[in-house]
Amino acid sequence: MSNVLASWNDGAAKSAILDFVARVTCEGGMDFVPPAKRIATFDNDGTLWCEQPLQVQVFFAQDRLKALAAKDPSLRERQPFKAFFEHDLEGIHDLGKRGIFEVAFATHAGMTEEAFDQTARVWLARAEHPKLGRLFKRCTYRPQIELLNYLRANGFKTYIVSGGGIAFMRAFAEEAYGIPREQVIGSSVKTRFEVEDGRATLKRLAELGTFDDREVKAQNIGLHIGQRPILAFGNSDGDLAMLRYVKTGAGARLALLLHHDDAAREFAYDRDFRLSPLADALDNATAYGLSIVSMKRDWKRVFDA
Amino acid sequence: MSNVLASWNDGAAKSAILDFVARVTCEGGMDFVPPAKRIATFDNDGTLWCEQPLQVQVFFAQDRLKALAAKDPSLRERQPFKAFFEHDLEGIHDLGKRGIFEVAFATHAGMTEEAFDQTARVWLARAEHPKLGRLFKRCTYRPQIELLNYLRANGFKTYIVSGGGIAFMRAFAEEAYGIPREQVIGSSVKTRFEVEDGRATLKRLAELGTFDDREVKAQNIGLHIGQRPILAFGNSDGDLAMLRYVKTGAGARLALLLHHDDAAREFAYDRDFRLSPLADALDNATAYGLSIVSMKRDWKRVFDA
Repeated sequence: MSNVLASWNDGAAKSAILDFVARVTCEGGMDFVPPAKRIATFDNDGTLWCEQPLQVQVFFAQDRLKALAAKDPSLRERQPFKAFFEHDLEGIHDLGKRGIFEVAFATHAGMTEEAFDQTARVWLARAEHPKLGRLFKRCTYRPQIELLNYLRANGFKTYIVSGGGIAFMRAFAEEAYGIPREQVIGSSVKTRFEVEDGRATLKRLAELGTFDDREVKAQNIGLHIGQRPILAFGNSDGDLAMLRYVKTGAGARLALLLHHDDAAREFAYDRDFRLSPLADALDNATAYGLSIVSMKRDWKRVFDA
Repeated sequence: MSNVLASWNDGAAKSAILDFVARVTCEGGMDFVPPAKRIATFDNDGTLWCEQPLQVQVFFAQDRLKALAAKDPSLRERQPFKAFFEHDLEGIHDLGKRGIFEVAFATHAGMTEEAFDQTARVWLARAEHPKLGRLFKRCTYRPQIELLNYLRANGFKTYIVSGGGIAFMRAFAEEAYGIPREQVIGSSVKTRFEVEDGRATLKRLAELGTFDDREVKAQNIGLHIGQRPILAFGNSDGDLAMLRYVKTGAGARLALLLHHDDAAREFAYDRDFRLSPLADALDNATAYGLSIVSMKRDWKRVFDA
């Protein structure tokens, strides 16, 4: 056991995880869960990687807007794009999380799904976090990657269920987390089926399909997975419906909530982060049966060296 | 090789399948496809099991309507329900495939996803096909189950992509086809997230979420799977967008079309089946690059003994 969850400090959170996995995998035990039902769902932004000062996808959209403005300079003067160009955090926050993501998604309208994937990969290969001094794609949390590996080693199927764009996350989820494309659930735009020169494609539209936040997370779990997961991990009130959906099913269940309380190694925030506040879930964690994970107390290290 | 696809007669269809699988699994070969990209999608109604004289789910809805009418007899006099009660095939067909499925889906509005699953399982355990003299759930095609097994043995991930209800298919797909719930894509109703007595549930609404037919099949593949499958199998024009989406990607591809031309062992129909006609795909199979599978010629047997 010594190498299991090596970046987690001993304590209540690590014990809760080890105990839960031991119980659901103990054949013949009263909490045994067959492998086909060992489904675990993880939020992405703020749960698997850093979401400060803005979600990574917002930076991706900013760079895309710059490229679009090179062809159409008037974009720089038009809201909501103006706020993005001027890095006007207040103005961006005023759009709300959904509004921001709608702008972000719309910047790639007209692309085929395959071209979008390639564009996202090229961007992720070089884009750097403005404060952490590392590539965005290396802003993933080491303890969480260990947890995903540990769960899979114990027969779990691991999913992402995030407000982030489903196609954006699919461009890095396999490499970053070992999660294949089909196990990524997120916000999405509608697509149009087209046949051009005999070749069928799906083209991204500017119209939102689903904004995968709050209750919609539980609904999309129903749609994509079709069964109630037995473990979920989130970090904001946007994850609360998913956490409660998972926690209130029959049998053994584990719902984990990451609290960003580590300004020294990452960022410290909760109820005041307008784009994705954590308040209700934190204040009522005990009543909801959530296990709090403190970044400061429970994680030996946050990022890979 | 002697036991592979034992219920398939030797011929062009079987050869096309064996040749394709050999090529994409040959490491170092020019058509090699890594396992993560070996995605195969199958239509269900008419491709994996019998859809005559009506799709199985319509019979399920008829029985549900009878139970509802026991409480509210006026249902028997109201259209569109009246047509179902009177087994008025003409009246049912007039609703169109989408209209019929909307009625069918609406009959279970208000149920939780888990209660619906249980109801479908109970029904499937005893409901019999009106002509074939066997349980509906045993109206699956033996050669197709062999094909699914063969593909999985060669590293493929097998999916259902069908116009049938996603939750209904999930109630039998694992047992019937070895396809887990999360690999079933279909038509769906919207759900509502509710917390009752501290327990979170998803309740089925009467409102259609997606009707998974024609172009929507390709769009839902994009949403749920996030990559272009390399093999697809259908039996109607409702599958044509999926077949072309799969066939026109880069690299080795196989798109198969089942032709129901076997009145002796099953049913013979194509362009005149109003609920799900096969015309365009059949007439232009060569141009679209589709491999035709003739039930009469290519299958040694249709059903399990």
